[in-house]
Amino acid sequence: MRIGIVGGGAIGLLTAAYFCGDHDVTIYTRRDEQAEKLCTNGLTVICGNERTTHRVHAEPFVREIEEEMLFIAVKQYDLANILQTRIHMLQANAIMFLQNGMGHVSYLPHVPHHHIALAVVEHGALKIDDTTVSHTGVGQTKWSVWRGEKEAFSFLSSTNSRFPFQYVDDWEAMLLEKLMVNVAINPLTALLRVPNGMLVTHEPYRQAMKQLFQEVASVFQLEQRESIWKHIETICHQTAANRSSMLRDIESGRKTELDAILRYVIERANERCVPAPISTFLYALVKGKQLEGEKER
Amino acid sequence: MRIGIVGGGAIGLLTAAYFCGDHDVTIYTRRDEQAEKLCTNGLTVICGNERTTHRVHAEPFVREIEEEMLFIAVKQYDLANILQTRIHMLQANAIMFLQNGMGHVSYLPHVPHHHIALAVVEHGALKIDDTTVSHTGVGQTKWSVWRGEKEAFSFLSSTNSRFPFQYVDDWEAMLLEKLMVNVAINPLTALLRVPNGMLVTHEPYRQAMKQLFQEVASVFQLEQRESIWKHIETICHQTAANRSSMLRDIESGRKTELDAILRYVIERANERCVPAPISTFLYALVKGKQLEGEKER
Repeated sequence: MRIGIVGGGAIGLLTAAYFCGDHDVTIYTRRDEQAEKLCTNGLTVICGNERTTHRVHAEPFVREIEEEMLFIAVKQYDLANILQTRIHMLQANAIMFLQNGMGHVSYLPHVPHHHIALAVVEHGALKIDDTTVSHTGVGQTKWSVWRGEKEAFSFLSSTNSRFPFQYVDDWEAMLLEKLMVNVAINPLTALLRVPNGMLVTHEPYRQAMKQLFQEVASVFQLEQRESIWKHIETICHQTAANRSSMLRDIESGRKTELDAILRYVIERANERCVPAPISTFLYALVKGKQLEGEKER
Repeated sequence: MRIGIVGGGAIGLLTAAYFCGDHDVTIYTRRDEQAEKLCTNGLTVICGNERTTHRVHAEPFVREIEEEMLFIAVKQYDLANILQTRIHMLQANAIMFLQNGMGHVSYLPHVPHHHIALAVVEHGALKIDDTTVSHTGVGQTKWSVWRGEKEAFSFLSSTNSRFPFQYVDDWEAMLLEKLMVNVAINPLTALLRVPNGMLVTHEPYRQAMKQLFQEVASVFQLEQRESIWKHIETICHQTAANRSSMLRDIESGRKTELDAILRYVIERANERCVPAPISTFLYALVKGKQLEGEKER
């Protein structure tokens, strides 16, 4: 199958690495330089002590793409631009979105593809350099159909056991659960500069996370609140030593997914006239840290 | 006049330094070692390029004190113990409390002294070592009578021009204004690890401080809200390069005045059934940072 992957970040490279053995994969990058390096050096994935390099095709995303299947693996903050101005350049039968947050859902009615799926990635992945990704935690990718037919994505059933896909019926509950996880873990770890585990082992931080969780759960009138809270605690324990992507972005002075996560919550709260003081306060603090970091660079 | 000063921290040493020229001053310390050093080396105050050493008497606070006037210059968190168990050891005609926060006010009905005054110190002071204090910012000490007569404190009118006292009528408004300043500046600078000026020059932080201020102002049904907010902004500008006492305490792994400041707010909010989500959230985050620091030591 001819598969295109838009985005050369950690998730794009990881996805490419696990499909390029069985499929004809092209990675579409933002920078010429990364595409050239991928063509020359191949794509290396590190998993535990294993280090595997795959031949892969890559090119910068500058002209029209024609593929059978497309994975959109850019960050939420780069997606709006693609959906608004370059969606006609993405020719494919089926398309799958791999973003955090839910901001992209409102654009989907304007996406012309017959078969549209949404997915949330529950793998640990770290981009080491332009051609190397470390698969730091084997998890799964949950996915759901937003428009069209599930069968258009049937090739997902025969993936590598280290990169499984699991279908779920309710795409909204799926995205919301991931959003709750990101809301609870990312901004707090970025602000406090602590690894994920501290949010559950350090009691004051656990209380703060719970308070934030309750507020956001109210904004979304979340059902199964207790089980999602337990899920978040489990993730913190399982990834105790990890530094969240937002913490790493803040430390490196990079742009973060703060807007896709916390500003999205605040906007929904405003629409629904539900107060969200903690989300608003935390947003300002982390935004401030992000701007401090950008100024230093 | 025979003046006793209970507490050998920055404020106690500064007060002693400015009274010991004209009065018979004794500093009552917690540790034997500090009292011995003060008796041997004298008390040095640094102000700008000047460095002055005064002969001073000091002894550990272990037995009954008899003075004409007493300044209580211990931190709020040490005061409860003194007021509850050792108040009978403090013999004096008049007594003045120099604490941040308002937690001590509820104990005052049990304080036996005829003349009781409350004060808020608006000087910058930094304890360099057991016998040296740096007067980093010349301000004033506002004071007010809680019980008894203003005339019992008449010696305050003839103090050094670098250490002026200013009488105000409304002790509650005086303490509340200082509390608002401390609430707005201390926990945020401690959490964010930024100097005071960043809270007004860095727009997201200013927004967060404003949000916190509004919440706490509502808890206390604060009048003159706009003028107190301007006062806080002015202090941030005037002390832009300073690191707040709470930030320095956090960085050094010392106990902070967080409870005297922010837990006091939360308790009043609970009593009055007013929501205080931001204060509660911020309290947990700074408490967590404080405990992290203590664990590391």
